[in-house]
Amino acid sequence: MKQLGNLIERIIERTNINLREQDFDAGPYIRQTIPLNRLVKFYAFCGITPQHPLHFHFSRSNLAGSYFLGKCKVDHSILYKSDVRGDELKAKGDLFHFKDSEILIHDDEVIRVKDSYLIKTLVHCYIHDPETLEEFLIQNTVSMHYANIHGSPVEGCFLGPFSTVDLTTIHDCIVGAFAYLQVGELSHQRVEPGKIWVKAGDMFDFSYSFPKKVLDNYIAIEPYKRPRGIFIDFVRDRKIDFQKVFDMVHLKVPVVVPRGASVNRYALVKGESKISENVLVAQRAYLDNAWMGKGANAQENCYIINSRLEGNNVMAHGAKIIHVRLGKQVFVGFNSFLHGTPDFPLTIGSRGIIMPHTIIDLNEPLTIPAGHIVWGFIRNAKDLAKHSISIKDLSGVKRKFTLGAMKFHGNGSKFVQAFKHRIEHILEANGAFFDGRKNKGHAQKEQNIDFNIMHPYSKGPLKGLYPSIDIRP
Amino acid sequence: MKQLGNLIERIIERTNINLREQDFDAGPYIRQTIPLNRLVKFYAFCGITPQHPLHFHFSRSNLAGSYFLGKCKVDHSILYKSDVRGDELKAKGDLFHFKDSEILIHDDEVIRVKDSYLIKTLVHCYIHDPETLEEFLIQNTVSMHYANIHGSPVEGCFLGPFSTVDLTTIHDCIVGAFAYLQVGELSHQRVEPGKIWVKAGDMFDFSYSFPKKVLDNYIAIEPYKRPRGIFIDFVRDRKIDFQKVFDMVHLKVPVVVPRGASVNRYALVKGESKISENVLVAQRAYLDNAWMGKGANAQENCYIINSRLEGNNVMAHGAKIIHVRLGKQVFVGFNSFLHGTPDFPLTIGSRGIIMPHTIIDLNEPLTIPAGHIVWGFIRNAKDLAKHSISIKDLSGVKRKFTLGAMKFHGNGSKFVQAFKHRIEHILEANGAFFDGRKNKGHAQKEQNIDFNIMHPYSKGPLKGLYPSIDIRP
Repeated sequence: MKQLGNLIERIIERTNINLREQDFDAGPYIRQTIPLNRLVKFYAFCGITPQHPLHFHFSRSNLAGSYFLGKCKVDHSILYKSDVRGDELKAKGDLFHFKDSEILIHDDEVIRVKDSYLIKTLVHCYIHDPETLEEFLIQNTVSMHYANIHGSPVEGCFLGPFSTVDLTTIHDCIVGAFAYLQVGELSHQRVEPGKIWVKAGDMFDFSYSFPKKVLDNYIAIEPYKRPRGIFIDFVRDRKIDFQKVFDMVHLKVPVVVPRGASVNRYALVKGESKISENVLVAQRAYLDNAWMGKGANAQENCYIINSRLEGNNVMAHGAKIIHVRLGKQVFVGFNSFLHGTPDFPLTIGSRGIIMPHTIIDLNEPLTIPAGHIVWGFIRNAKDLAKHSISIKDLSGVKRKFTLGAMKFHGNGSKFVQAFKHRIEHILEANGAFFDGRKNKGHAQKEQNIDFNIMHPYSKGPLKGLYPSIDIRP
Repeated sequence: MKQLGNLIERIIERTNINLREQDFDAGPYIRQTIPLNRLVKFYAFCGITPQHPLHFHFSRSNLAGSYFLGKCKVDHSILYKSDVRGDELKAKGDLFHFKDSEILIHDDEVIRVKDSYLIKTLVHCYIHDPETLEEFLIQNTVSMHYANIHGSPVEGCFLGPFSTVDLTTIHDCIVGAFAYLQVGELSHQRVEPGKIWVKAGDMFDFSYSFPKKVLDNYIAIEPYKRPRGIFIDFVRDRKIDFQKVFDMVHLKVPVVVPRGASVNRYALVKGESKISENVLVAQRAYLDNAWMGKGANAQENCYIINSRLEGNNVMAHGAKIIHVRLGKQVFVGFNSFLHGTPDFPLTIGSRGIIMPHTIIDLNEPLTIPAGHIVWGFIRNAKDLAKHSISIKDLSGVKRKFTLGAMKFHGNGSKFVQAFKHRIEHILEANGAFFDGRKNKGHAQKEQNIDFNIMHPYSKGPLKGLYPSIDIRP
């Protein structure tokens, strides 16, 4: 596996060069993390559908356990159990609206991963940066377990485990574990673990940082060691359930899927789960006793356990809920961890917004009133009071608002509008509003996907590398 | 599925143009044979190994259930459950010996299938024609169930079910069901069903024709109907056993495979089967209570049921044995059907040669003495007397020999030598003589194959067509 080993070293070298200013070495974080033999063990799979522009190109790479849809190019990279879902890419001929101008898209947008090592990472959405319209580029980058790269060109970065870069062009940055960034552009910075930061120019700036001691329980990394913490234990304990899903070439989803809904055959559905109309369950979502109301969705790496979603709920990539009841149109942001128990259930009133990377881990039953926005770390009603505000009240903020460790600058109404607009867009994109004919979204378009399955060389000097593969319509 | 339908019509059109002299219409033979929805149902798979030159190129084709290894290009064709095994192709830099000259091979040989429809067909070996060294071309051709295209460029032909074209350049011919041709070159001819014909220039000419009435029981075709007969029933009755083999992505072979042997994970092994050293079991071989002695092989579409092979046995593509005991180094030719029963077992003495396309279907127990060559249709000892000769006696034939419906012209010794030489070569190529270090063959090189799995579009206007796929090292 010499060539595979060399590939890892080259990726480390390139990432380090981009991060030389910060004197950072990615090597100790990834060299031991995934044993080489695991990179040989898993197949990659790519979705073949007539609904999506299709072009896969893979060369000199390892794609162990990774999934691809749409137009994706991967060169000189390692993608370990990652999802590259190109179903929202811009298409040739589209008009891209930026401020007052409309820019013509002259080629289909392509997700391109180059000289990078992505571990259990989600890549989704499309590039919102008007400077790079046709290429969604991830280059010289190492991203750790359950990072989300969402509509963000990423160059020369180290993304810690469970971090999210959302609609942000990011260059030469170190993003700490569980940090969330939606700030437009960022370069040459080190973002501390557990920092939640949403910023739109001069309009608004929301930030919160998890206490280090709290965060360490949930997710922590050190060089030369694998990531550890409650998040890691949680997914590891449920890994075995996915085994059978990946063992079969074809798999019938073990639940009734009504018209207009889709459950990816690489999702895990067990217990008494219910799928209503217009529901989308993406690959690698995990449903156990999950009642999915009309138009609800469960995206990659979501876990929905002993929970009920009343309808039009967004479970963003990596969100986890256990013993939770979501009222209508509740939004649960990226990688949030909402952990109730049979004795301490969590209820979230309708139209609630759970900010990305929120941890609610209850030691008493809790009900969040309707129309509230929630962030940070919450164990009970007392914590909730310091980590939430009604959307109405936030809309009234004109200049500044702080609560506990949260700081908000700018126009509260614009912040709320941006969020509401985005949730509306997500529901629309996912097909929640499909009426049997119009408003098709992922839930409708991602029915009947067929999967090509690709293996690496299992012997010889190329062991662990995949052959060069090019797939077009 | 309009495009898939159009593709079938274009293949029919092209085949018919080549066969216009004979006023032949391939359409009625294939239009109804495989319902379109079956072409959508099955995945194709290609073997990834470091031991074989690798290049797969597929475009505008349907590859339902087909297998590929080595260098294969398929354009504008339908390959239904066919095997294209390119593990004996010539390599760049090889020297091709032809009479007194040595021709340098300037590129790796490629199997190229163009504008053709192959049903459950085996394509194997390499081109022996010095005129087309680097391309093993199959073009404007329709081949029916279980035809074998073995080291033969085939252009503008219709190959009937269970027919074999072996080391023969064939052009604009109609080859009847169960006909076997190994004649060097053939063009613009119609070969009657059940004709067995082996010819090497002026050296020798062996021919035998099955009585029509007999053959009709085993295999027959008529336009507008699917092929029928005992052969078809036999494979159909065992089809269900293969289901589980194709359902799983990875499959552990349910039998001990010693060092130097290989059992393809797409073979079916059941009952009390035994695999000895240096045994090769190819994909789509069927073993049920099969005792495979050292160096024995079972090639594609072989069935070995309640049988024992003492060692160094060749079971050529499509050979079937039931309640048979093969002595050492017995050769069973292509598509032979040797059917004993518990009460009427068949024993074949060592070094026996069962000619390709031999039918032995016993109504009494039968033992074939060692060192005999056997052909035709045999039900008992009486039939055997008219359809066999000792290899020693045949070697003594100088000019002519006839027995029953068999005619032999030429030099018996050269015929025997050619056969022996070929059997030796087949055993060598299959790795029967591997000593733990030297003499590697397919049995050793085809361990640890990994398989890429490819699906067609399952919806939309391209339904049934596979995306264009290009796979290289």
